[in-house]
Amino acid sequence: MKPSIPKGTRDFSSTEVAKRNYIFNTIKHSFENFGFQPIETPSFENSSTLMGKYGEEGDRLIFKILNSGDYLKKADETLLSEKNSQKVTAQISEKALRYDLTVPFARYVVQHQNDITFPFKRYQIQPVWRADRPQKGRFREFYQCDADVVGSKSLLQEVEFIQLYDTVFSKLGLNGATIKINNRKILSGIAQVIGASDKLIDFTVALDKLDKIGKEGVVKEMLEKGISQDAIEKVAPLFSFSGTNQDKLSSLSAMLEASEEGLAGVEELRTVVNMIEEIGLSSASLELDVTLARGLNYYTGAIYEVAAPKEVKMGSIGGGGRYDDLTGIFGLKDVSGVGISFGLDRIYLVMEELNLFEAVELPKPRVLFLNFNEAENLSKIKAIKNLRENNIKSELYPDTATSNKQEKKQWKYVGSRGIEFVVTDVNNDVFVLKNMLNGEQTTCSLDELKKIIQ
Amino acid sequence: MKPSIPKGTRDFSSTEVAKRNYIFNTIKHSFENFGFQPIETPSFENSSTLMGKYGEEGDRLIFKILNSGDYLKKADETLLSEKNSQKVTAQISEKALRYDLTVPFARYVVQHQNDITFPFKRYQIQPVWRADRPQKGRFREFYQCDADVVGSKSLLQEVEFIQLYDTVFSKLGLNGATIKINNRKILSGIAQVIGASDKLIDFTVALDKLDKIGKEGVVKEMLEKGISQDAIEKVAPLFSFSGTNQDKLSSLSAMLEASEEGLAGVEELRTVVNMIEEIGLSSASLELDVTLARGLNYYTGAIYEVAAPKEVKMGSIGGGGRYDDLTGIFGLKDVSGVGISFGLDRIYLVMEELNLFEAVELPKPRVLFLNFNEAENLSKIKAIKNLRENNIKSELYPDTATSNKQEKKQWKYVGSRGIEFVVTDVNNDVFVLKNMLNGEQTTCSLDELKKIIQ
Repeated sequence: MKPSIPKGTRDFSSTEVAKRNYIFNTIKHSFENFGFQPIETPSFENSSTLMGKYGEEGDRLIFKILNSGDYLKKADETLLSEKNSQKVTAQISEKALRYDLTVPFARYVVQHQNDITFPFKRYQIQPVWRADRPQKGRFREFYQCDADVVGSKSLLQEVEFIQLYDTVFSKLGLNGATIKINNRKILSGIAQVIGASDKLIDFTVALDKLDKIGKEGVVKEMLEKGISQDAIEKVAPLFSFSGTNQDKLSSLSAMLEASEEGLAGVEELRTVVNMIEEIGLSSASLELDVTLARGLNYYTGAIYEVAAPKEVKMGSIGGGGRYDDLTGIFGLKDVSGVGISFGLDRIYLVMEELNLFEAVELPKPRVLFLNFNEAENLSKIKAIKNLRENNIKSELYPDTATSNKQEKKQWKYVGSRGIEFVVTDVNNDVFVLKNMLNGEQTTCSLDELKKIIQ
Repeated sequence: MKPSIPKGTRDFSSTEVAKRNYIFNTIKHSFENFGFQPIETPSFENSSTLMGKYGEEGDRLIFKILNSGDYLKKADETLLSEKNSQKVTAQISEKALRYDLTVPFARYVVQHQNDITFPFKRYQIQPVWRADRPQKGRFREFYQCDADVVGSKSLLQEVEFIQLYDTVFSKLGLNGATIKINNRKILSGIAQVIGASDKLIDFTVALDKLDKIGKEGVVKEMLEKGISQDAIEKVAPLFSFSGTNQDKLSSLSAMLEASEEGLAGVEELRTVVNMIEEIGLSSASLELDVTLARGLNYYTGAIYEVAAPKEVKMGSIGGGGRYDDLTGIFGLKDVSGVGISFGLDRIYLVMEELNLFEAVELPKPRVLFLNFNEAENLSKIKAIKNLRENNIKSELYPDTATSNKQEKKQWKYVGSRGIEFVVTDVNNDVFVLKNMLNGEQTTCSLDELKKIIQ
């Protein structure tokens, strides 16, 4: 029986790890450059920390860990005989795997509040687990890369996160990303104006289809969803919502003049948009998008979502927003937070498609010393030690060839690992160096060898 | 109710993450420098992959994951009513958390054997989980840092792992580590000579106490364990086993002359010891230790264990060895492997005790821009953008102070984060910079500021 791994999980080869680390390191470097501090939390939390925080669906998708030892001892006989899976779970499982990084972060902030200097800018890059049905680009184990600030309501944070997105994507060479921004208060304003808060999601979902089905189609869908003709007329400007972000802000100001909250949202966005216009972005663009309603019940201010460059078909590669009461669930009230997340797996796919991994150094030696003559090994090991001390990756093929066939095996190894430089022989500190790309062979000293291969 | 985390798990603060990453990065850099390639495997494996691989005790310590959905549906009624925890487990749990990195690696090699170029030098730095009773230095979630080579029986690998230990510990400033080495074949030879293979563990355990309880005490213990007086006399040289590694090898050669396997072990060790003497070590020393019997049933050749510098009381900070049939459990026969592991948590404790973390850059900005005047924020943000582009960590305090008290709060933030440089005001591109260490205040341009703080 060939061994396998659970569905929705992945092994990563050296090349994949190298590419993934390239993205992780770029994100990490920018997080730290922007002043975010790393924390790490355990892979599993007490079930009470996680359960009930992600809705009913979330509760189901959380991986639970079976208690150790004679775990059935304390379980209720009746529930067991009824096979009441749901109720038995709480009796045989006390721990669960992390479902996201936000709830553990909120738990961390409350638990360590006396050791934290606020405002606290933290980042966290760790795996999370979800018992989702696996499909293309969706896994049961995947990494989240989150940066959040807690303990400040300043809009400067909103500005900084846009700069952070732009910085990371520019460094990755992933030019042309669109950072979409909205504000929960604008959505509340629209709901007020159309007089139907409960229809807000239907409204934004329909509006989002404007490009595809045109104004008529959108209006038809809205009417079907029970949004009144009168309401639709009040937000008519949204059907020709184009131009610059400034144009859109003016349009929104006029449209939401009856909603105090809506206007507050417009003013917040205006502050952010103006600052970004002053500062400038390197490769991304900022786009006000009123259809952006991501995490509606969660966010209270800014909402972000990042779209990949237009030449690639891919869902959002990042998102985030402001939530005014992050830590309330754990008893610490009035701590405002704002944060963003990078979608590692999708960024990876986009970069593959755009051939952006060329800069990644693959894990292989710069020079391989072949092993055709045992008597030369000590000299070769000493040379390799010197090269390694100079940070030149080098290796000695471990087994000495004692036949033609075994020599061929070593040459095959050189080929399949794509190694560029090979040392065949050493004699009195003179090395025979072969360049595998052009077949050139040189005899040289170790110092000369270093210069050639670097 | 104050939130908490499961026993045996840990939150890591920014400072702890920075120190841990310093160790991880040093190990990782050396692994790659020596030609090891990173792989990663999923946090959970199919239970069938893990169960039965670590003995009965290991099976109990493996964390099992509850199946999703209505998991009791398929469970046997009788077993449930009997509360037979052990047998029910297999019916309600198909996955389990990784217990070490070696078994998943063996599974990886077999599963991907057609994509791997052998000899395959891989490293893996990932967390593992064990339901052990937590105690000082023992956790339920901890990292392992493993490097292994599979597909080569060459002793050059044994030599390289000693160099690798020496390199990592030297780079960490952890000078004076002792790399103890033994060989399973020597242990087999001793067992043959004393004519009691089943008493080998008793024998080495007793011998290990020589320093503490003297020759008489050791002999007494051996006799009590049923090792004959005659056998004890045959291995008498071990009671005065001192001098150089070469002295010990000579002594062993003589003592084991009746055991072919024992002599083979001596010859293997001699090759390794001779090479290391030729190459030299930077800060560690190599010590032949015949009492080293770690993982006796597992290793077939070399056995390593690293002791911390003598001034620190700490168990082993690393270990490893050669196992001739790593992948046999998954159906791929005759693949020899040899590997070593670094004990991250213990290395951390040793480094704390020896004050070796001074080189670690703690996560804080090089310069903080205070926020006393909203009108200056745009200029400050632009300056910060420039500094960050030059890889100088810098931050703007997010909230504008509107009272004396709020200004004090910002100064307090500077103090508690231990920030060295602060910008108070900006006016026409002239910055007021304060050095918090000596209280000096300067007015300067941005270029001058960069020079001062770097």
